[in-house]
Amino acid sequence: MKLWLFGLYGIVATTAVAGDRAVKKGITDTTGLVSSLPVFKDLERYSPLNFDQFGGHEIRALDRNLYSELFSHWEENQHFDYRILKELEEDLKDIKAKKGTALNCGSGVLEELKPVSTLEDEGLSLEQIVERIEKDILEFKDDETVAVNVASTEPVIPYDQEVHGSLEGFERAIKENRKDRISASMIYAYVSLKNGIPYGNFTPSAGSGIPALKELAEKNGVPHAGNDGKTGETLVKTTLAPMFAYRNLKVLGWMGYNILGDLDGKVLSHKQNKESKVVSKDKVVSKILGYEPYTITEINYFPSLQDNKTAFDFIHYQGFLGTKMKFYFTWDAVDAIVAAPLVLDIARFLNFAKKKGVKGVVKELAFFFKSPMDTDEYNTHKQFETLVNWYRSLK
Amino acid sequence: MKLWLFGLYGIVATTAVAGDRAVKKGITDTTGLVSSLPVFKDLERYSPLNFDQFGGHEIRALDRNLYSELFSHWEENQHFDYRILKELEEDLKDIKAKKGTALNCGSGVLEELKPVSTLEDEGLSLEQIVERIEKDILEFKDDETVAVNVASTEPVIPYDQEVHGSLEGFERAIKENRKDRISASMIYAYVSLKNGIPYGNFTPSAGSGIPALKELAEKNGVPHAGNDGKTGETLVKTTLAPMFAYRNLKVLGWMGYNILGDLDGKVLSHKQNKESKVVSKDKVVSKILGYEPYTITEINYFPSLQDNKTAFDFIHYQGFLGTKMKFYFTWDAVDAIVAAPLVLDIARFLNFAKKKGVKGVVKELAFFFKSPMDTDEYNTHKQFETLVNWYRSLK
Amino acid sequence: MKLWLFGLYGIVATTAVAGDRAVKKGITDTTGLVSSLPVFKDLERYSPLNFDQFGGHEIRALDRNLYSELFSHWEENQHFDYRILKELEEDLKDIKAKKGTALNCGSGVLEELKPVSTLEDEGLSLEQIVERIEKDILEFKDDETVAVNVASTEPVIPYDQEVHGSLEGFERAIKENRKDRISASMIYAYVSLKNGIPYGNFTPSAGSGIPALKELAEKNGVPHAGNDGKTGETLVKTTLAPMFAYRNLKVLGWMGYNILGDLDGKVLSHKQNKESKVVSKDKVVSKILGYEPYTITEINYFPSLQDNKTAFDFIHYQGFLGTKMKFYFTWDAVDAIVAAPLVLDIARFLNFAKKKGVKGVVKELAFFFKSPMDTDEYNTHKQFETLVNWYRSLK
Amino acid sequence: MKLWLFGLYGIVATTAVAGDRAVKKGITDTTGLVSSLPVFKDLERYSPLNFDQFGGHEIRALDRNLYSELFSHWEENQHFDYRILKELEEDLKDIKAKKGTALNCGSGVLEELKPVSTLEDEGLSLEQIVERIEKDILEFKDDETVAVNVASTEPVIPYDQEVHGSLEGFERAIKENRKDRISASMIYAYVSLKNGIPYGNFTPSAGSGIPALKELAEKNGVPHAGNDGKTGETLVKTTLAPMFAYRNLKVLGWMGYNILGDLDGKVLSHKQNKESKVVSKDKVVSKILGYEPYTITEINYFPSLQDNKTAFDFIHYQGFLGTKMKFYFTWDAVDAIVAAPLVLDIARFLNFAKKKGVKGVVKELAFFFKSPMDTDEYNTHKQFETLVNWYRSLK
Repeated sequence: MKLWLFGLYGIVATTAVAGDRAVKKGITDTTGLVSSLPVFKDLERYSPLNFDQFGGHEIRALDRNLYSELFSHWEENQHFDYRILKELEEDLKDIKAKKGTALNCGSGVLEELKPVSTLEDEGLSLEQIVERIEKDILEFKDDETVAVNVASTEPVIPYDQEVHGSLEGFERAIKENRKDRISASMIYAYVSLKNGIPYGNFTPSAGSGIPALKELAEKNGVPHAGNDGKTGETLVKTTLAPMFAYRNLKVLGWMGYNILGDLDGKVLSHKQNKESKVVSKDKVVSKILGYEPYTITEINYFPSLQDNKTAFDFIHYQGFLGTKMKFYFTWDAVDAIVAAPLVLDIARFLNFAKKKGVKGVVKELAFFFKSPMDTDEYNTHKQFETLVNWYRSLK
Repeated sequence: MKLWLFGLYGIVATTAVAGDRAVKKGITDTTGLVSSLPVFKDLERYSPLNFDQFGGHEIRALDRNLYSELFSHWEENQHFDYRILKELEEDLKDIKAKKGTALNCGSGVLEELKPVSTLEDEGLSLEQIVERIEKDILEFKDDETVAVNVASTEPVIPYDQEVHGSLEGFERAIKENRKDRISASMIYAYVSLKNGIPYGNFTPSAGSGIPALKELAEKNGVPHAGNDGKTGETLVKTTLAPMFAYRNLKVLGWMGYNILGDLDGKVLSHKQNKESKVVSKDKVVSKILGYEPYTITEINYFPSLQDNKTAFDFIHYQGFLGTKMKFYFTWDAVDAIVAAPLVLDIARFLNFAKKKGVKGVVKELAFFFKSPMDTDEYNTHKQFETLVNWYRSLK
Repeated sequence: MKLWLFGLYGIVATTAVAGDRAVKKGITDTTGLVSSLPVFKDLERYSPLNFDQFGGHEIRALDRNLYSELFSHWEENQHFDYRILKELEEDLKDIKAKKGTALNCGSGVLEELKPVSTLEDEGLSLEQIVERIEKDILEFKDDETVAVNVASTEPVIPYDQEVHGSLEGFERAIKENRKDRISASMIYAYVSLKNGIPYGNFTPSAGSGIPALKELAEKNGVPHAGNDGKTGETLVKTTLAPMFAYRNLKVLGWMGYNILGDLDGKVLSHKQNKESKVVSKDKVVSKILGYEPYTITEINYFPSLQDNKTAFDFIHYQGFLGTKMKFYFTWDAVDAIVAAPLVLDIARFLNFAKKKGVKGVVKELAFFFKSPMDTDEYNTHKQFETLVNWYRSLK
Repeated sequence: MKLWLFGLYGIVATTAVAGDRAVKKGITDTTGLVSSLPVFKDLERYSPLNFDQFGGHEIRALDRNLYSELFSHWEENQHFDYRILKELEEDLKDIKAKKGTALNCGSGVLEELKPVSTLEDEGLSLEQIVERIEKDILEFKDDETVAVNVASTEPVIPYDQEVHGSLEGFERAIKENRKDRISASMIYAYVSLKNGIPYGNFTPSAGSGIPALKELAEKNGVPHAGNDGKTGETLVKTTLAPMFAYRNLKVLGWMGYNILGDLDGKVLSHKQNKESKVVSKDKVVSKILGYEPYTITEINYFPSLQDNKTAFDFIHYQGFLGTKMKFYFTWDAVDAIVAAPLVLDIARFLNFAKKKGVKGVVKELAFFFKSPMDTDEYNTHKQFETLVNWYRSLK
């Protein structure tokens, strides 16, 4: 199978590709890959781990290649063993991104990534942008190609029933060049689903989540899933919050304070881009508990950490006889390392879903997302069981 | 229903009784009680929350009463609101313990609780001790009586097939006054099960877990459960460890460092008594992960904390591409407050089980224990689901 | 000596008075009182610990008394042993506040404390407010009276050279009823210093720090000190930051995340009132290190914590060969308990200073403040040495 | 100046040499070097940072060289940037250790380092060992040579007045081949001091601390200092404990729980070798506070951490009105990175001391040690001031 990544030169995409190739070469193992757990052993028959080919869109460094970009990220982060990196040059240096779009991606992305080069900069209309994206993907794809969006978080675009509410409205808006209402992630999801390519939305951006694109997926019989990879603090939150629920302990307040120093952090330090992320992180606790404790959810830029995402959580809870007690946790992880394998996992499960005739939102992939589409199940354990049961029932 | 507690004057027992009475008076709510979760609503019909009567055995302060002992604990710990305490005097001052046994409870218990007064101090033989314990319980019990052991942790008694391996051997040993092989918790469990009283073992002591007593429970058709209430750090461990398993993250090491300052801490600071506790806490991680990471599990006495149990856990784990990452948590809770409601829960579920004809080890109560009998399920989430399903299927 | 407190019914003031009385009765010891360290033993001769009388201004609950207000705080916080509280009723119930002012105290204070009752509500002009405040104080004071401001944090008032720049300008502004430029803390400081009463500013509010009032203190030969009691996270910061400096370790970033749930927290959740606090906390690290690392300083309201102030600090630093390392600390303290004794300390040292003829800003009291006036010394250790040396040289 | 290191191939020594060379090449800066702080600027004139030559004794890998050994450590730990490492090969590959002794170094060292090769294995007597050590050093030394012991921690050797109490007794014991009473660190210190070479003891081993060798240092006019580099948790403890003292806050208990995974950790996991370390770490808090709070000091091996030393400290303290509060810190550092620069610092200051005619124990270097000789000053701040004042007075 093949994988197309929107945001191909980012640290998550480059690390995902590097990891896949390192496993293939036998210089690392499958640690971190959910899809390689023994319980999913037969998945290998449908969606083999070692992808045939990688491609994607980017808005920066278009004169370079995936290895050079990975190397830049590595120099900043040293996020895995140097000995693995140096063996991958040959495998990665020929992978090159196509020029993409940053439509409505916010000032954060444009400022922090500059110099950027986008299709809209060429003066193209929405329709022309769609055509160019489509052309790139059609040249790449085969029957087993999946697309995953790992580009930076977009600002929230206000919902517009006319444009986002139906496929017809969406396609009309493209024709009418309504650039104010359509963002890059929508375009990417549109082109993917239109061409029968399963689409995974690893960011909190709109992606395939608007009604227009859900309609398209149903119509074309394509599976898709999102939103926002559940990689760090939220993973712990949704693992731990059930404990308080099971034990009838009342959560009085839950503080989650996140700091990170990479591009993601820089982009999120732009207020516009932060909004969708905080909303995505904040609601999970109350969804699991069934009531709304006082919560603080903050994300802040902390440059020296680079891609080392750190979170400080404090949970104040009440037990028997009204006594208040405390729980603290500190999450200290490398974002790309916890995110990258999930990108491969999502792609493998989406390809499997397509082969099994699943269409529309695959809500059984909720396990991988902070804001899973079309489900209210946020409990990590139940999500995992759901995933296993879904896989078993299809297999 | 009625509740008989071995270790009636300890902080866990007195807090459990106080809590039950405070709920009855409407001066506290049911926070902390698993059995009061909406999902178990109908349990109230079988095992009403407000117990009719409390009694128990003790080895100290036999001239005093449950309120005076609760007040002593409160003075040390101030573990709940003073305004609740002062309203309970009338309800609790007439509850008095009967003299119990401390056979093979180790030097820790005897030294730290002194002055103690036990049946064996009166020069009684094993058979006579059993008779006295039985007489006390028979005077108290009705058809809906449950017994729970909340006495201090006993040292490990080496397994002796002749004495522990069969009911016949056990009863012969009592007759032959084999005081070297039989501990207080075994005597308590024996008398309970012999008389049709469900028995819960809230400590890591042997209790009803030896083959002889399992045989007795089956024979008499009595349900029992244990061992060792899962109240603190182990609860978190068994909630969190599955996350690493689901995500295929490799735990390299797990350090759990526990400190506490109450009697439990003092007793555990005696090497002999510590052993069974550490074993009970240590194995859960590997049972969940399916492999044995390097673990450190320590429990130490820290006097100024009193009943405020604090644990520091550090998890070192490996992700994609071999990168090592870190997770830390701090548990800061009041032991009696997290333990007491579970004592009531276990009693209610055991009474329910008896009414439904369940006999022998109720392994579906694993959710409440660190070392659940007859099951290898340590994952808190699965244990909770098992509990709910079991309850639903019987109801 | 006597102590007059602005904000007499707040938790800090009531706890300070309660503590003083509890020490006097012998039901608590002098733990927490810097002025009772052996090195300051002779201070007792100049400023005896047990104050003769307490009084103060308030803007709420003027029909009640210090004991009833302390009891309210205690019910919320249970911040010290109930057995101490109940022995203090007789000592505290006759202490009653006089009506004060909340001029320019911000919407936070007024909303959170309501119902409030202030002199300006009576329709008084600035000049009349000053007269009333003065009358109250003159009725109370003797030669050994000190005043300390423990009222809530005021918003920053923009500096106005005409009003704040000289005593003459300040007094003219009072006459001209320039209510937009003069805040409650300035009025309190003005009346104190005008009448020869040493003034301590325990808040980050303007207080005696404006040039006009510094001029007044010099003119009248009165000592004063401030600003903002160094009680919690900042105390640790200024103790720890020197370690990095001494060892030539480069601090890359310092995150300080504070949460608290009492009135102070509520008031600070009003943006207007927060500004002066954050500024006060934020600059200390760079002052000690001599360069400006990346810093995050946040204060947020977390209601269930009540007066339990918690801070999470993360320090990212670089060592030999450029390697980055991490340090974390968690501060979990009861604000009133760490603040109250310092109020007594400051009063005692100010009274001592007055007796020794010290006038103007006593910068040697920097040890007690987050934003010490007229000094750049923020290192807690050096501040302590300065305090000891100053005391010894005067004694 | 030249530096001779006992334990030349260990991670601390190799990192110290690498760091010195990297500074010389301009590929890293002087971060982490106390002796390069602006206040010690003129030290460069007496003890230039870039050492002329390095040498030392070892008991392992004698067929290899400093670069190959550094590379082995780096492969395990990746403790600094790979780009620095690869530029140092030429500078370090010709530095080779001489065969040393492991006399009375405990089973821990011998087992963990094997294969080892020692002078005693050649069948040499004590006197012959001394001669060989001396020959190696004499071939290397010039007038500005300093020796520092960075070998693994030795077990405690019981004090024997006859052997350790006087120089004469010590020399007699060498002649009489009393191998049971004399350890490697004593031999190294003896040879150094006998030949006028200042000696720094960076370990808690006996080194130059026995009366016999102090006598020798005085007699020969040589400065020496020790013991046990204050690099991590103890550095924080001795920085922070004064805060509690200054504020009259009563420390009820201090838990320090250390884990580490390198050779040091492995050796310390041998009970015999651990003893001297724990004693060295444990006493500092009570020395600073002036009373003995309850303390827990533990060191445990945690293999996956490698050289990443982590410590968890919990401080329980009492404030005003008897209220108990909590403070937690987590130290997460790379041991070699915090230790290595201090080795260079100590060498530079000892050389300076020698030039200034200082002889015997230089207690003003206490700042660098956990168990400073001949002083009771453990407060990091006072130690730093002492160091600065001493330096200034001599300069």
